[in-house]
Amino acid sequence: MKTLVRLSISTDMPQVLRLIKELAVFEKEPNAVKITVDTLIKEGFGKNPLFTCFVAEVEEEIVGMALVYDRFSTWKGRSVHLEDLIVSEKIRGTGVGKALYSKVIAYAAAQKVKRLEWVVLDWNEGAIKFYEKNGARMLKDWYIVQMDEEGIKNYMETLK
Amino acid sequence: MKTLVRLSISTDMPQVLRLIKELAVFEKEPNAVKITVDTLIKEGFGKNPLFTCFVAEVEEEIVGMALVYDRFSTWKGRSVHLEDLIVSEKIRGTGVGKALYSKVIAYAAAQKVKRLEWVVLDWNEGAIKFYEKNGARMLKDWYIVQMDEEGIKNYMETLK
Repeated sequence: MKTLVRLSISTDMPQVLRLIKELAVFEKEPNAVKITVDTLIKEGFGKNPLFTCFVAEVEEEIVGMALVYDRFSTWKGRSVHLEDLIVSEKIRGTGVGKALYSKVIAYAAAQKVKRLEWVVLDWNEGAIKFYEKNGARMLKDWYIVQMDEEGIKNYMETLK
Repeated sequence: MKTLVRLSISTDMPQVLRLIKELAVFEKEPNAVKITVDTLIKEGFGKNPLFTCFVAEVEEEIVGMALVYDRFSTWKGRSVHLEDLIVSEKIRGTGVGKALYSKVIAYAAAQKVKRLEWVVLDWNEGAIKFYEKNGARMLKDWYIVQMDEEGIKNYMETLK
């Protein structure tokens, strides 16, 4: 079974959104995905794209994706963030994930960045084992902090 | 004591680097800061800047900073990441941190993003309390995963 990993084009976005929704189900938040195909196309394929997306194809079907963008570390400098690496459940264990992972690291190497970074759910043992075996290290003493659109709006009200 | 929060200019970067180093000492990693003033100027004030930096001034001295950049959530869309919010130790408790925090949230509101996100060390109780009191929520079930420049290089060797 031959896997082709390539840069995505805008017409791949319906399949990419399907994979994003599949991951949300796996991460136990099936209703958290609010993004649309139109937004993915607008933000990823305009004049100043917010991300770069790779897709993995097997027999001309998109079965995986990896989405990355630039970040900046005030300790190290330019870095790449891996927002998602998704392989469709039906195809797991066939090397598609490793092919996408390798593509992302090759991309980071080509960009000459100081760091590649992502996050993983603490109960996702399969992924954690894979990352540790493949050159990454886990930082377990940080919390993610978020304020959503409504939180931002509410805070702005307190400033009036 | 009057605090002025404004957009930084390139000549503020020596003071900004001083604050970055002060935070690294507080976070128990005094030798982790590899960045230079030249890199901050190059990456923040060129044609496609990697970040936006605000500084807080008291009596014409820079005593705090907040550094942000765009990110992209595959669930929500365009978001802002707060990389650092630093207030010099000598001036803490005087409202400078709150002024910078408000500026960052106002920036996120003006950009109409879907989310503002950052990270905090799990032992930094003062900061956690402040964030929880001021509209943010903690996500405690994620690990940060990193691969540094050497890790990227080593992984690329395994692909040869």
